[in-house]
Amino acid sequence: MKRIKPVFIIFILLSLLAFSFPSGCGFAANPAKKNVIFMIMDGTNSDIVTLSRWYKGSGLNLDKILVGGVRTYSGESAITDSAAAGTAMATGMKTRADHIGMSKDGKPVLSVLEAAKLSGYAAGIVSTSPVQHATPAAFTSHVIDRDEFGDIGEQQVYQDLDVILGGGAAWLKPKSKNKVKNDDGMLKTKQISREDGENLISSIKSNLVYNFISSRDGLSNSRGDEKLWGAFAEEDLAYDIDRKALKPDEPTLAEMTRAAIERLSASRKGFFLMVEGSKVDWAAHKNDPVGMISEVLSFDRAVGEALDFAERDGNTMVVAVTDHGNSGLTLGNVDTDKNYKSQPKDHFVGPLKKAKYTVKGAVSLLKDDRSNLKEVLGSYGLHDLNKKEYCVMKDAKEIGDLEDEMVKLMAKRANLGFSTHGHTGEDVFLYGFGPGKPSGLIENIELSRVFARYLGFSLENFTDWYVDGEKFFKKKGYKVMIDKRDRDNPELVVSREEEEIRFPENKNYYLRNGERVELRSVNVYSGGRFYVHWE
Amino acid sequence: MKRIKPVFIIFILLSLLAFSFPSGCGFAANPAKKNVIFMIMDGTNSDIVTLSRWYKGSGLNLDKILVGGVRTYSGESAITDSAAAGTAMATGMKTRADHIGMSKDGKPVLSVLEAAKLSGYAAGIVSTSPVQHATPAAFTSHVIDRDEFGDIGEQQVYQDLDVILGGGAAWLKPKSKNKVKNDDGMLKTKQISREDGENLISSIKSNLVYNFISSRDGLSNSRGDEKLWGAFAEEDLAYDIDRKALKPDEPTLAEMTRAAIERLSASRKGFFLMVEGSKVDWAAHKNDPVGMISEVLSFDRAVGEALDFAERDGNTMVVAVTDHGNSGLTLGNVDTDKNYKSQPKDHFVGPLKKAKYTVKGAVSLLKDDRSNLKEVLGSYGLHDLNKKEYCVMKDAKEIGDLEDEMVKLMAKRANLGFSTHGHTGEDVFLYGFGPGKPSGLIENIELSRVFARYLGFSLENFTDWYVDGEKFFKKKGYKVMIDKRDRDNPELVVSREEEEIRFPENKNYYLRNGERVELRSVNVYSGGRFYVHWE
Repeated sequence: MKRIKPVFIIFILLSLLAFSFPSGCGFAANPAKKNVIFMIMDGTNSDIVTLSRWYKGSGLNLDKILVGGVRTYSGESAITDSAAAGTAMATGMKTRADHIGMSKDGKPVLSVLEAAKLSGYAAGIVSTSPVQHATPAAFTSHVIDRDEFGDIGEQQVYQDLDVILGGGAAWLKPKSKNKVKNDDGMLKTKQISREDGENLISSIKSNLVYNFISSRDGLSNSRGDEKLWGAFAEEDLAYDIDRKALKPDEPTLAEMTRAAIERLSASRKGFFLMVEGSKVDWAAHKNDPVGMISEVLSFDRAVGEALDFAERDGNTMVVAVTDHGNSGLTLGNVDTDKNYKSQPKDHFVGPLKKAKYTVKGAVSLLKDDRSNLKEVLGSYGLHDLNKKEYCVMKDAKEIGDLEDEMVKLMAKRANLGFSTHGHTGEDVFLYGFGPGKPSGLIENIELSRVFARYLGFSLENFTDWYVDGEKFFKKKGYKVMIDKRDRDNPELVVSREEEEIRFPENKNYYLRNGERVELRSVNVYSGGRFYVHWE
Repeated sequence: MKRIKPVFIIFILLSLLAFSFPSGCGFAANPAKKNVIFMIMDGTNSDIVTLSRWYKGSGLNLDKILVGGVRTYSGESAITDSAAAGTAMATGMKTRADHIGMSKDGKPVLSVLEAAKLSGYAAGIVSTSPVQHATPAAFTSHVIDRDEFGDIGEQQVYQDLDVILGGGAAWLKPKSKNKVKNDDGMLKTKQISREDGENLISSIKSNLVYNFISSRDGLSNSRGDEKLWGAFAEEDLAYDIDRKALKPDEPTLAEMTRAAIERLSASRKGFFLMVEGSKVDWAAHKNDPVGMISEVLSFDRAVGEALDFAERDGNTMVVAVTDHGNSGLTLGNVDTDKNYKSQPKDHFVGPLKKAKYTVKGAVSLLKDDRSNLKEVLGSYGLHDLNKKEYCVMKDAKEIGDLEDEMVKLMAKRANLGFSTHGHTGEDVFLYGFGPGKPSGLIENIELSRVFARYLGFSLENFTDWYVDGEKFFKKKGYKVMIDKRDRDNPELVVSREEEEIRFPENKNYYLRNGERVELRSVNVYSGGRFYVHWE
């Protein structure tokens, strides 16, 4: 036998090794930067996704990345609200309904977005709701009641985020007499403005370093390195299907997502981005299938943007979920009890495709004297009403009643069922792509840990970030009081000998004898207690 | 620098290699035997699984193996029936409603179970419905109309399966005057017996080599090597929650699954087993949440049996799915429109836990004079009815009306919504465990290919298994006719010179000049055409 040279054997073995290690085994020379894009379609049961796919006529981006399921219940209820669900996913802690970034007993808990920022990552949020709405709020603020848009907005301004894109301009401005107009009944805030009288847009523009924009053009012209704050609507952005005709100046969710990724990806270490397709939920509360589909498809295009980036980048984890079901929409209803098995897809999407607007969009075109009722019904795809159907529409007292009758007729025509106008409690689909992605059935609270693990920090290190200011400084020998003379801008005041330190609510600094000292997080007043970070 | 010996480098590289190949890379010395256990919970939306977990109070076996989702629509409708869904999963082909193992144009297509048998694997089916019901039928027979239980049953008897366990004894026996009694409205067959007058139990016992059993005891005493046919009920088996009190002689789905695995795992090459938890669907059609939970938990225990075996075995793929949604059950209904966020789990499972029976089980206890109505309502967990509620129950005309009112009141008390009494069209969860398991979002038709690939054969090789007998033999110069003198036992008769070959419907043989010759599949008469296999 001819002897094989050792060097040749080494060559063969090295070649084999090169092919045998799965890629991403950790042999890369330098630690790459890492990104997480977490995308939430609010209030979306699995049936809506199926129906949206039929409506689109081809596969969704989400279809490519289905990896498991999520349990959504809150710390209080088998059916969560978006505040408790957002908080669970952001902080890793089940909490009560309405709580934003607060534990069951009302203590602020740092979110994975805040922890990522503190660990050197860039961070941003994108939503089609006001950015102060529950889900984006849960990643960027701490309040007991989700409707405290004033407090949430102020904390967001002082969070030093890199990108904020969405609605909610109204809550960045001082008191006005405007009422909430555009909200689908989803904004329970009493004020469409700041009760504390502050002009946060000035803060955003002057004190801080944001490029503040308010239109789609502003967004597309905003290439650059500066931080970006886009407030594209006083309240929420229009439904995607209504946008082109009614609000052409507003960007799409996909456009906002792409802009956010472009900006954030300049970060040296990487980034954490939360994107919410907020209004599937809003349309679901109305039982408007047209609005629900509009927003699922809009969200799916944003997922496409995230996946495009992640595929190119290689170090980006994309996770998409809904926070909970809503409306119990089904393909099939009481009219298909017996004949469901002979309903081609057109029996569902045919009637839906006739709609040019959501029910809200259509009804926004109604004249005060309702003289154009027929056109309005037609713009929602409701043509050829029989006499009885038309009378019901004509007799509807309030606009809300008219909307109800319109969506009911659409559901009947499109063979869709609904079981509630509220949220539902089922397990939902989990979507994931890229390194470190989760899989299988998980609790919603596991998500923040999945993100933290991938980004290389531990949420446990931030557990005691906030201290109860009164207790903490008393122990240190300070005199402590909460100064509520300005009811809307309370301050924790701690003093000892010559030293007075004032912590203003929602700001990321304190004043020591009048001199401003920056903090790395915002001060939180829960109404009862004042929480601050102290190093 | 000291020179390192090449042999040392080779040693290091070899060590690295040993650790770097993922297990299962194909380096095993011998091909192991391979098994597939395919488990179907019929008509189960994701909400029922969530509710069942709350009811149980701890995690399900299914929870450990969630891997993706399945699209369920049929070749005819966005909402499938069980026949088209079963056929899709069994054969890899979308078809019309009601078709069992038949293409859209009515041609028999071999199932993955049949192909596995032909490839040397053992094969079996287990169900809580009659084994002739749509789902088990789709793996083991070929008929145009799912309600042809007589034909389905006969084909199953002549399929030479290794294990058949379930209900449906009635359709193995000759004509009787019994009516369908036990069916929840799910059995549309006209006859609860064989129209063709054959006694298939005799065939099973004598001609073939089955151990034929009809009770739970028979099952537990049946250890051995013989083939096993268990027909534990004339029609369907009782709901699991009713079984102990009403049908203690019937085995559980888990017991049947364990017995089937024990027997099949004696196969030298491996096996294909289909298990159906049939009656989630039946309870869902009734909108009876008690029955639905009973059957999900019963199914989940059977999944536990499969996983126990698969974990020990190491070469077994377990896949579990539902074939489609049903009923649109939701946690949350019109009463929780506004207060869903404050509904602890006991608001759902508390009322359900009061039920000792399904609605069907409870009503089966009702005396003819209805004098025990209150006890019957109580046995379904409905205590403390107010006057109006009780009057509705008392005034119910038919038994079906009473059941409807009972489930409606239960749904109200348990805060559950329903949108239909029919099937629904949403994507459903996909569960998988073991080597070769599927993942992500798949079409139901992909499943059979996943199974075939793992078992090492291609379904494409069986595409042309069946030929149209008339055309085929005419081409070969035979005279051809279909002999329908015995209307219920038609035969394809082909003759040439001295030779006459008779193919009796549903049998796995032909008679050549009166002499029986075995075939490897059953003869299929679609009503129009006669399909046979000819080698």
